[in-house]
Amino acid sequence: MPSDRIFNFSSGPSQLPLPVLEEAAAEMTNYRGSGMSVMEMSHRSEVYQRIFNETKTDLKRLLNIPDTHETVFMQGGAILQFSAVPLNLIGRTGKADYAITGNFSNIAMIEAKKYGEISIACSSEDKNHTYIPAQEDIRVTKGASYFHYCANNTVYGTEWKFVPETGDVPLVCDMSSNIMSSPVDVSKYGVIYAGVQKNLAPAGMAVVIVDKSLTGSEHPLTPELMKYRVMIKHDSMLNTPPCYTIYMLGLVLKWLDKQGGVEGMARAKVQKSKILYDVLDDSRLFKGCASIDSRSDMNVTFRTASDELDAAFVKEASQAGFENLKGHRAVGGMRASIYNAMPVEGVEKLAAFMRDFEARV
Amino acid sequence: MPSDRIFNFSSGPSQLPLPVLEEAAAEMTNYRGSGMSVMEMSHRSEVYQRIFNETKTDLKRLLNIPDTHETVFMQGGAILQFSAVPLNLIGRTGKADYAITGNFSNIAMIEAKKYGEISIACSSEDKNHTYIPAQEDIRVTKGASYFHYCANNTVYGTEWKFVPETGDVPLVCDMSSNIMSSPVDVSKYGVIYAGVQKNLAPAGMAVVIVDKSLTGSEHPLTPELMKYRVMIKHDSMLNTPPCYTIYMLGLVLKWLDKQGGVEGMARAKVQKSKILYDVLDDSRLFKGCASIDSRSDMNVTFRTASDELDAAFVKEASQAGFENLKGHRAVGGMRASIYNAMPVEGVEKLAAFMRDFEARV
Repeated sequence: MPSDRIFNFSSGPSQLPLPVLEEAAAEMTNYRGSGMSVMEMSHRSEVYQRIFNETKTDLKRLLNIPDTHETVFMQGGAILQFSAVPLNLIGRTGKADYAITGNFSNIAMIEAKKYGEISIACSSEDKNHTYIPAQEDIRVTKGASYFHYCANNTVYGTEWKFVPETGDVPLVCDMSSNIMSSPVDVSKYGVIYAGVQKNLAPAGMAVVIVDKSLTGSEHPLTPELMKYRVMIKHDSMLNTPPCYTIYMLGLVLKWLDKQGGVEGMARAKVQKSKILYDVLDDSRLFKGCASIDSRSDMNVTFRTASDELDAAFVKEASQAGFENLKGHRAVGGMRASIYNAMPVEGVEKLAAFMRDFEARV
Repeated sequence: MPSDRIFNFSSGPSQLPLPVLEEAAAEMTNYRGSGMSVMEMSHRSEVYQRIFNETKTDLKRLLNIPDTHETVFMQGGAILQFSAVPLNLIGRTGKADYAITGNFSNIAMIEAKKYGEISIACSSEDKNHTYIPAQEDIRVTKGASYFHYCANNTVYGTEWKFVPETGDVPLVCDMSSNIMSSPVDVSKYGVIYAGVQKNLAPAGMAVVIVDKSLTGSEHPLTPELMKYRVMIKHDSMLNTPPCYTIYMLGLVLKWLDKQGGVEGMARAKVQKSKILYDVLDDSRLFKGCASIDSRSDMNVTFRTASDELDAAFVKEASQAGFENLKGHRAVGGMRASIYNAMPVEGVEKLAAFMRDFEARV
């Protein structure tokens, strides 16, 4: 880490791999002899199509996406998918199930109610979303068009440790905050979507992986640009896609590949989160916010005994080069988001800083 | 122009000002001492909020946007606005008027038919969209929620030279390909929208300028992220906006300001288009595709007498460093898109190349 860069624990948009940023800067005014920036390329040009196709191919290989599924790049982040999922899928039977494990899954559910009959299949609201419900707590509605859950809850620092069993009901999963942090059996899912601004690229896009057999029942009022069937047919180019964001995703995927792929990321995330959870478990000052068996490897939430001490910690950490550690207002305290691009070094230094802070106060 | 850069006549995404790209490259890994890239910043952070607010303030000042109107940044480009406009506005009376002057205005009309009763107020289809209808050809529907037109037709190379008079019916205008190329009386419009990838920034966003008094009648099935009322309330941050695209827009606006603002762009565009139209008017080989009084200052469409000669011209031009001159398949021939960022030098050199080509063949 060059001395002029800080460690950025933002929950998203978040830190990107430094070699990726350096490559983007070096290619900014002239991409590999093309005489132009990637930002300036026609999305229909050969030079851009190579970037686009390579990015899709790398994503398919690294996430092991089967041929039954197609990947589309859509604008509007995960929030527009909160509308796109019911608009595309709920027409199959008119009803759907939602697991409520945090604010984003709740917003997704409220949005879906516009379009069909929604049942809450399970909820962790009784304990302010500090845990993930168990399989036996899930009530699947017979004939539901899909079962929606959020794999990692950024705000609360919890993460699903298992894939819900829902029988014939297709799984739809918001993986915005943990996509490509560990291997996933994509064939188990009807739809996986993820806003890219945490683990994959700069903000402004969602990666959407769709089981093609589920498409074709979209609501008649669905905007054309939000139809999975249409976006698949046009290979994400019904209109001009966010070309530069796709290019950045491509650079991140090349970097990720060099780190050992998704398997390498999975090893690193356990290593990184353990460093911080060990501090919490050993500490008399710091306390983890999430139930131990539901702890996220992506967002570590914690607090001291007082709001004043929390604020002092966040302030001193910032002065020491650890940025964006303030927790979400729904939980308070602190949150260290340690996505794929966060180096082990950043987590080790934060752990040392936490121990030092505890010794001083 | 450094020798390694080409002149890019792409219709969009298109050339950006070189100083803007150079600044973006220089700030890529560390934005002005923040220790991070703009791509990595939390959209809620102070450092990013300054970028965001300055971009909005510059846009308001440069386009002279009155306080009756609010600007929002929305993902999905102009195509998602084809849906957003009727979803937000047609509920006022259930019907709307569309002027058909090219493929994009036609696609906008087809999309709007999902949401209400649409009338074609005028059309240039009878002559393959080579002209813009006159005021006296426009039939405005009494009580229409809005009148929609596309100010510049990228494919056909035509541009409205007047603002349609529609009485009490609010004007909605797609200015994707000529926004900020000349002054506009924003107070005359209900909604102005523009995909940013031609005159403003890299692809992945639309600038939407909304008369606040028109909001609040959105269709109940409108996705939250597409509601003008909601996006205004959240100052474009209902979710994570395309932060880096907004930053790039900000850099382009600073550059534009230094060139004399929108008035400077207006002088330059007339100068640039005249250089090419003079070649066409003097030529025995090249012929303009658009009717003279409807010619666009942004997209100059032309052809020779044969497809073979057109192809030879496009190929030789590319070898000489003039890229993306092939015309759209709906028109054929050639198209030189000369948006704000195209320097006069690029147009002068293309004109010289055209004269030389004509002398040789």
